[in-house]
Amino acid sequence: MSKQVSISVIRRLPRYYRFLGELLKNGIHRISSRELSSRMGLTASQIRQDLNCFGGFGQQGYGYNVEALYGEIGHILGLDQNYKTILIGVGNLGRAVANHMTFDGRGYELIGLFDSNEKVVGDVVRDIAVMDMDEMEDFCIKNKPDVAILCTPREAAQRIADKLVELGVRGFWNYSHYDINMNHPHVAVENVHLGDSLMTLCYKVKDLDSPDGPAEGNKNI
Amino acid sequence: MSKQVSISVIRRLPRYYRFLGELLKNGIHRISSRELSSRMGLTASQIRQDLNCFGGFGQQGYGYNVEALYGEIGHILGLDQNYKTILIGVGNLGRAVANHMTFDGRGYELIGLFDSNEKVVGDVVRDIAVMDMDEMEDFCIKNKPDVAILCTPREAAQRIADKLVELGVRGFWNYSHYDINMNHPHVAVENVHLGDSLMTLCYKVKDLDSPDGPAEGNKNI
Repeated sequence: MSKQVSISVIRRLPRYYRFLGELLKNGIHRISSRELSSRMGLTASQIRQDLNCFGGFGQQGYGYNVEALYGEIGHILGLDQNYKTILIGVGNLGRAVANHMTFDGRGYELIGLFDSNEKVVGDVVRDIAVMDMDEMEDFCIKNKPDVAILCTPREAAQRIADKLVELGVRGFWNYSHYDINMNHPHVAVENVHLGDSLMTLCYKVKDLDSPDGPAEGNKNI
Repeated sequence: MSKQVSISVIRRLPRYYRFLGELLKNGIHRISSRELSSRMGLTASQIRQDLNCFGGFGQQGYGYNVEALYGEIGHILGLDQNYKTILIGVGNLGRAVANHMTFDGRGYELIGLFDSNEKVVGDVVRDIAVMDMDEMEDFCIKNKPDVAILCTPREAAQRIADKLVELGVRGFWNYSHYDINMNHPHVAVENVHLGDSLMTLCYKVKDLDSPDGPAEGNKNI
């Protein structure tokens, strides 16, 4: 695989993966780049260009084999990995994340939940009993998780992230707003800033009232 | 304001807004595009280009006036609007969103919460008592919300979204995975697909093990 793949292409892969998964569910096994583009709101040439980054899977006059493309994109994303994953902070957000996300078959295996609130410790979420934060270090030494999901407030996040990096965690799904990469540039981090999406919506709603109608920025992307 | 602003620029504005807000909090009132770029992981020329889309706020040899830029980006995003907002689906995710998001001063005023689960109706979340779904229509006729936050399962979302569009709602912050724009192309929608971020993290973690080290795609963006 080429190292020249840009972050924008990578970021579109999960969308392709979702759309292709929907097609498979609906029994569609072949699709042209034109059809795929109209469903995804991207140009056909954009799609061809994106998929060419990874070797190209289309066949002239036939289109894409949905199942093969779905499998290959999953492989590129690493969804066939099985990263041992822990979640820290089992409040409403942590519970929502633990309960609603698909981990198995998406590269992750959720193996532990931790919270410092004694009212929460012992609760069973997704068949896992929430452990006390004091147990985290021993658990990590024994079970060697690869990835941590940080659903704690920002203030607690720095100390926890530092400790987890020391314990060998190298990937963070970070809801805490603490900038983990500032002190740990070599771990993989996905920061989730839901507020950014809410601000973008604000722009889009305001833009509906613009005298010329919505700008290009208001496409459903 | 130019209509030529691309979605990628718009999507970066909330990040600028957050960073500038942090600077203000730390008493920093002036910043060069070079400093801003090193903090944000964008190139200085990218930053100049982005901010030029809106008229440019920098002064040669002086840099950016943080407060002015912060105010202007907020204005462009529409954060000085006051969109009346309701939230549907007060499970863990809905509660997390209602409790943790900043609405006031970010363009929104949260005025109502709705759920169909009678165990949840009457609960007070963020000083608002959760109402029954059956009350939604009357509430909307009376209060005319502009924006709805959809935290329901996908199956329920279509019916609810159709009804809300009929009732005049024209912006959706959509956690439901139902594609609202398919039937309603003229409303503003921000879809939140947390799974996409989780899949991107999977790629980044896998890429750490790549023999050549992490690809360009693994930047902290």
